[in-house]
Amino acid sequence: MTETDPQAAIDAERKKHAHERDERVYEHVAGDSQEGIPFIGAGPGNPRLLTVAGKEAVESADLVVHAGSLVNSELLEAYCDDAELVNSVGKDLEELVPLMRDAYEDGRSVVRLHSGDPAIYGAALEQMDALEHEGVPTYIVPGVTAAFAASATLRTQLTLNETANHVVFTRPQGKTLDPEDDHLAEFVEMGDVTACVYLGTHAVAETMERLVEEGADPETPVSVVYHASWPDEDIIEGTIGDIGEKVEAAGYRASALVLIGDAAAGAGYERSYLYGGWAKRGETESDTDDTNE
Amino acid sequence: MTETDPQAAIDAERKKHAHERDERVYEHVAGDSQEGIPFIGAGPGNPRLLTVAGKEAVESADLVVHAGSLVNSELLEAYCDDAELVNSVGKDLEELVPLMRDAYEDGRSVVRLHSGDPAIYGAALEQMDALEHEGVPTYIVPGVTAAFAASATLRTQLTLNETANHVVFTRPQGKTLDPEDDHLAEFVEMGDVTACVYLGTHAVAETMERLVEEGADPETPVSVVYHASWPDEDIIEGTIGDIGEKVEAAGYRASALVLIGDAAAGAGYERSYLYGGWAKRGETESDTDDTNE
Repeated sequence: MTETDPQAAIDAERKKHAHERDERVYEHVAGDSQEGIPFIGAGPGNPRLLTVAGKEAVESADLVVHAGSLVNSELLEAYCDDAELVNSVGKDLEELVPLMRDAYEDGRSVVRLHSGDPAIYGAALEQMDALEHEGVPTYIVPGVTAAFAASATLRTQLTLNETANHVVFTRPQGKTLDPEDDHLAEFVEMGDVTACVYLGTHAVAETMERLVEEGADPETPVSVVYHASWPDEDIIEGTIGDIGEKVEAAGYRASALVLIGDAAAGAGYERSYLYGGWAKRGETESDTDDTNE
Repeated sequence: MTETDPQAAIDAERKKHAHERDERVYEHVAGDSQEGIPFIGAGPGNPRLLTVAGKEAVESADLVVHAGSLVNSELLEAYCDDAELVNSVGKDLEELVPLMRDAYEDGRSVVRLHSGDPAIYGAALEQMDALEHEGVPTYIVPGVTAAFAASATLRTQLTLNETANHVVFTRPQGKTLDPEDDHLAEFVEMGDVTACVYLGTHAVAETMERLVEEGADPETPVSVVYHASWPDEDIIEGTIGDIGEKVEAAGYRASALVLIGDAAAGAGYERSYLYGGWAKRGETESDTDDTNE
């Protein structure tokens, strides 16, 4: 059993750091190995898109708690040959936290493997807070999110000069997003945003219908990438007006990313002047430097 | 010399794919090795945050064209021991494209290394289009973006239940973003968005002043992470009202990420019910599955 109700543990941990950061924020840099259980971004699926740090951690793990079908089994097979594997799907915090705590306190090397990057719809922090509250140290190892794999597959960028100046990660309204917190129509209306809709495969048709009702142009391009970087990766392309029926016809209900906007569709763009052009025009070095990111 | 003006090459490549995707979109999945020059996301800086695919490519490269001071020299030292290194800073497309083309046509293994992920303010596609136009195949290998490293360092998530439902990657208005395309005040006003401002270190003070003028609450938390995941990583925390002078006092003019919103500051949040709670309430498997991402 956990010593404390998980929400109470979360609230206590958050309160503790409300006015003062955890000291480890200043003691470590992202990507370095730390004491405790790493919460690792497994990347979008392809084992080759795991980070060097993530690979090292899972290869030396005794226990890997992974996000079930969201993590490509090829990755587990490639790197976790000797570890005990536990699927987190169907297990709540009350079950997962003691499981990880007990293994860690028994001196085993424990790794928590989330899909994508843990910062994006990852629900990692609540497990970390609950573990920390029971004295088990934790830390995050970032990963490649599905939108970046989708963009690579589509041979484009999510930002493109004069076409897409901004990128948004959002989710459809539903159980965990109230209608008043759904800003997708506003993002699309801006006209220069690539909107990446996570966790919305089951709701593509209703999301697109709502966009049209709220005034979006039905001709706006939409690219759907199912299982980006997996062996069964698939691409469906259409518009706000027709992508809903196309996704339904393909039969996907989960694990696809919905990209709305011209950039994902491979639109034209203006070249930048990042490579010398600005410097030649007499800008300062730091300006040139900061822009060539 | 390039055969064609780079912008003309870009326009020609985009026109070619306006109605039909490049066939390679369907033939390969993200992360797999392909024929041609890979445009690799080097990640935020720490060599341990390069992907397995990226490491493999740079380790076997004869020529690595890298983004100068934006790519951590430790990464080049760790993985590119035998390769010729070319710094792209100060070189325009007219110089870079023939350099990569000639090396590739001479049978050398050529790699282009961008910082972060190439899809985010990467200016990779214009080089790819120019190379493709001259018959040199290219492809993208995604990477970890600086915002994910910053979030890992801060021990938080960019999305948090009931606190931050959406994430935005944006840049400050200036030479490459017209004032009418600057949506930062709108993003901040939404109240549940974590806004990650890239390429804006030199403009923090003026960006924050503009936000206040446009009605943002000066008490909104802002976390600035300089060189996320690098050995000299640094964190400056404040609010929209005071972060400008803090960053100026620290003397940073480039290479910091500005995170606006409660999530980056480590605010409280509600636990999710991803781990079994929903399944127990009788949701379908695909709903549970898709949400635990």
